[in-house]
Amino acid sequence: MKKTMEYWFDFGSNYSYISTMRIEALAAEKGVTLRWRPFLLGPIFQSQGWASSPFVVQQAKGNYVWHDMVRECRKAEIPWRRPTDFPRSSILAHRVALAGAEQPWIGAFCRRVMMRNFVCDQEIASESAMLRTLEELGVDAPGWIARAQNDDTKLALRDQTESARDRGIFGAPTFLVGGEMFWGNDRLQDAIMHACTAPSIVHAST
Amino acid sequence: MKKTMEYWFDFGSNYSYISTMRIEALAAEKGVTLRWRPFLLGPIFQSQGWASSPFVVQQAKGNYVWHDMVRECRKAEIPWRRPTDFPRSSILAHRVALAGAEQPWIGAFCRRVMMRNFVCDQEIASESAMLRTLEELGVDAPGWIARAQNDDTKLALRDQTESARDRGIFGAPTFLVGGEMFWGNDRLQDAIMHACTAPSIVHAST
Repeated sequence: MKKTMEYWFDFGSNYSYISTMRIEALAAEKGVTLRWRPFLLGPIFQSQGWASSPFVVQQAKGNYVWHDMVRECRKAEIPWRRPTDFPRSSILAHRVALAGAEQPWIGAFCRRVMMRNFVCDQEIASESAMLRTLEELGVDAPGWIARAQNDDTKLALRDQTESARDRGIFGAPTFLVGGEMFWGNDRLQDAIMHACTAPSIVHAST
Repeated sequence: MKKTMEYWFDFGSNYSYISTMRIEALAAEKGVTLRWRPFLLGPIFQSQGWASSPFVVQQAKGNYVWHDMVRECRKAEIPWRRPTDFPRSSILAHRVALAGAEQPWIGAFCRRVMMRNFVCDQEIASESAMLRTLEELGVDAPGWIARAQNDDTKLALRDQTESARDRGIFGAPTFLVGGEMFWGNDRLQDAIMHACTAPSIVHAST
């Protein structure tokens, strides 16, 4: 049995930004296969009665988080600029990521979208932004935009968000290893270690 | 200038339990002086419109947290039992900790109260429980209970909770090093490292 880990994230989530920048290299180093699971945090927050991110709704926590991000990005050795628009909506980016989740360029695509948002402070919602991002990867940009916008993909993103809620996901980033949930960028390494040591894996290696 | 760190905590807070069990040894190892700052999370949560802990109010997050606690306590190599009553109120324990904050037994007292709550699953609110806890430390238990219950201490705990809110504290545990805030047991080591390397300290050592 292969070591696999599901990575549930939202392009608007600042702590998902840190995980997205690190996760592919960390997983590869340990031989863990990643499953990219973009979903929409908005409906999850709304079902908790929040009109926006808790970092917007709870002012004291919000103030803290922007300071914590400076420190955490320094720790992770990645660039950081606080977005002037937060949380940025990005349904198209999520649809592209869902349509391309099994493609070899998925990691690079997700990092580029995240860097637009959290380093360049640029919008990530428009078709032109997504076209350019895909073009930079050297893939069939218009083809993937078309796939992202067809009804199957739209429905699949809705289903994936429903599935997140059904599985008890309440924030992002969230890592799932079998039935084990790890929430937050602070738990990324624990999740990967768990993927390496979970009983099913030990069994498979005997 | 001495390296100092303020430790803001609530005896009902499960992540404060983990920090309380670790903090004195970690700070001593790095030569950091601790200032114990018990405060009440209840009024902080209430001012955010929550009737209880977010781990009670938000069911999905609550479910996760009890699972995360098992893992985090294993990591910290401390015992853990999920309390049957959560969050346990403990105004008297907070008042004792406030009155005795500068005493040499403060760390041991706080660990004992936390272990009653999160290892023995026992109440921490009664005078008899606090008397016994203090007696076990070999201190003047009735004297400290009396000090805890006088009007000055009651007012001081109210002031300390107000002060927490004024300083932007929105949860526990929180560590303050000068003006720098660190929230959550996950940031304990970062806070201690910051106390060791903050500019004022570097300046003092030249």
